[in-house]
Amino acid sequence: MAGRIVRRIGELAAISASPDGLTRICFSDEHRRAAELILGWMGEAGLSARMDEIGNVVGRYEGGTPGLPCLMLGSHYDTVRNAGKWDGPLGVLTALECVADIARRGLRLPFALEVVGFADEEGVRFSSTLLGSRAIAGSFDEGALEARGDDGLSLREAMAAFGLSPDAIKKAARRRGDILAYVELHIEQGPVLEAENLPAGVVTAISGASRFLITLDGMAGHAGTVPMRLRRDALAGAAECVLAIEKLCGGDPRLVGTVGQIAAEPGATNVIPGRVRFTADIRAADDSVRKKAVSAVIDAIDETASRRRLKARIAKTHENGTALCAPWLRAQLGEAIAADGHRVLELPSGAGHDGMAMIDITDIAMLFVRCRGGVSHHPDEHVPDEDVASGARILLSFIENFRPQAKASL
Amino acid sequence: MAGRIVRRIGELAAISASPDGLTRICFSDEHRRAAELILGWMGEAGLSARMDEIGNVVGRYEGGTPGLPCLMLGSHYDTVRNAGKWDGPLGVLTALECVADIARRGLRLPFALEVVGFADEEGVRFSSTLLGSRAIAGSFDEGALEARGDDGLSLREAMAAFGLSPDAIKKAARRRGDILAYVELHIEQGPVLEAENLPAGVVTAISGASRFLITLDGMAGHAGTVPMRLRRDALAGAAECVLAIEKLCGGDPRLVGTVGQIAAEPGATNVIPGRVRFTADIRAADDSVRKKAVSAVIDAIDETASRRRLKARIAKTHENGTALCAPWLRAQLGEAIAADGHRVLELPSGAGHDGMAMIDITDIAMLFVRCRGGVSHHPDEHVPDEDVASGARILLSFIENFRPQAKASL
Repeated sequence: MAGRIVRRIGELAAISASPDGLTRICFSDEHRRAAELILGWMGEAGLSARMDEIGNVVGRYEGGTPGLPCLMLGSHYDTVRNAGKWDGPLGVLTALECVADIARRGLRLPFALEVVGFADEEGVRFSSTLLGSRAIAGSFDEGALEARGDDGLSLREAMAAFGLSPDAIKKAARRRGDILAYVELHIEQGPVLEAENLPAGVVTAISGASRFLITLDGMAGHAGTVPMRLRRDALAGAAECVLAIEKLCGGDPRLVGTVGQIAAEPGATNVIPGRVRFTADIRAADDSVRKKAVSAVIDAIDETASRRRLKARIAKTHENGTALCAPWLRAQLGEAIAADGHRVLELPSGAGHDGMAMIDITDIAMLFVRCRGGVSHHPDEHVPDEDVASGARILLSFIENFRPQAKASL
Repeated sequence: MAGRIVRRIGELAAISASPDGLTRICFSDEHRRAAELILGWMGEAGLSARMDEIGNVVGRYEGGTPGLPCLMLGSHYDTVRNAGKWDGPLGVLTALECVADIARRGLRLPFALEVVGFADEEGVRFSSTLLGSRAIAGSFDEGALEARGDDGLSLREAMAAFGLSPDAIKKAARRRGDILAYVELHIEQGPVLEAENLPAGVVTAISGASRFLITLDGMAGHAGTVPMRLRRDALAGAAECVLAIEKLCGGDPRLVGTVGQIAAEPGATNVIPGRVRFTADIRAADDSVRKKAVSAVIDAIDETASRRRLKARIAKTHENGTALCAPWLRAQLGEAIAADGHRVLELPSGAGHDGMAMIDITDIAMLFVRCRGGVSHHPDEHVPDEDVASGARILLSFIENFRPQAKASL
């Protein structure tokens, strides 16, 4: 199984907007070519395959009788810019390979199986993530249609150019009872499984995240002529904030905080920065831990600005709560890992995933697969063949032994 | 006198590469048009006017007998991008107005007068400052000819396109004995004269400056998945360095230190910065103070990098020693200020000026004129009419009472 998954990962990775790095954003020509490839593989495997109204690819394999509720498996097939080739596609193609194996054997389970490839998880083009899974979960925000990408096209316009009708998105939404659970296999994108010497692990929760854009306004001035005591240097203030975020998010191992972007204006060697903008990204697998950290960070920024006579503006650009993986699904994933001969490790997901949207319509769970060095969102992202094989065996075992359950009480 | 100076400042400011802000860089069409305008005014005033081999404009008014050594007056007529209109042109046009007044009265002094407008003080186009004054001082660096601007042209190519021969630059160099002194009137570009309620002041020295480009390399990673303790965050390291520079340059009022540019890579909200580049600009009117500060800053950067497992590279991009204004010239400028009824304040120049090059060939001095709010390199840069008039009266008084002297012992 692993051989074909790896080969197909390579074939998908060849579909890129840039020849020297993998970039595949939604509603592009690459989106269409990748969709056609996956839909073709689904058809070959005996699934009924279609593109839905938001551009997801969906393949269905019926259970013992047609029309049964399904176990939904999958991941996304869009990428970030200059991406690795495993983030997303590994989950789609492993799920497809498992279902293909079941179909090949003529096995009919007491539930249907669906393999989904979500059209836009990364949110690169319109700065709005999880478009595909939100449409299926019925939580698609119509306001997102007016968001514009770098090429000036709105989501509405890009979809129309792609041949999809924005007015039909609501038809992509599924009914609650139709999906028994959503289970996603994905690379860890972090260093924990490698450090624990394990090929796979069970995700406890997808961490909640709060993101901010902070603007500090001081006063620009000549780097040679304004005495230090008269300065209102926005960058010195921002530097204090960066260190405060690092410190305030550094004490609790459940918490991470990152400043990933910073820009100083006017931005000349010999001019005191009059304005600095930077981002803050704060995540925790426990919402109360995150909220406490966010509050402390905002206080620290305000205190720094006030002491340095700067004006601070703090705009929240994103917030999502922690999405808990269902204990009954975690238990069944753990059984499959143990059956493959491994210790069962549970870990949170600091990265966002489509389960954050799918949880609105069904219980979710995730199986993480080790990736080399924890590297992701980078061309060096890699999963060795043996870990691809482990992931596929574990997911197949999980599917064959899957026991649907009413929504567990958490 | 002030009326005509202000009117001409406006006429020069109309010659700009951008309609909505003043930008006039060397060897551009705007350079040519500004030169022609100034050369015309010089001719009208009775000076013999020419463009020299580096694109400076030079007007000469003979003394009692032709060919006497000259007192050289002037400033530059290039600008930064989106500049103010006073920085440079005020010195050229005030000097011209003073010499025109002397010529109008038929006064012949025991020395010649020259008014120079330097072609490139700001160094915007080729990142190499003082091209015009270095050519006159005979210290032009031939290596600068290969520097390329944003449009891809080298200085050599841009000069040729402008109609000047790079091979002839050495002909612009003057002989040491031909220039008795170089005296420049310039706006302060800082807040000191305004705070002291004085229209003008005498510069003690042009501060020496050291500039660096610092690169910190850590490890990029996913903002959600890499635990804080495993991070090698280049931006957190850079933030420490920014604060160290502020602190190490904050204790001594003779010293200033600035980080004006910063860039984090890859530069995404959800990615830990793996590389940060930032600049440091450190200045003092005393070279030993500056060198001590530079050494402390480098130590602090190395210490931070080492403690945070980052790799630091520190590249010196610029260095110039302090250029001391000659005491005998400072004394004569002070007399002229006192004669105009003002307290004589001496202050250092934190900004660089053409005197830094001219000191290689003659004694230098500078007269600073108050500018509103200390604002410079900005469209809001302004000098009120009465301060323009004060500056012109003081400079004229200085010229008429100028007593040449052998190089003073410092």
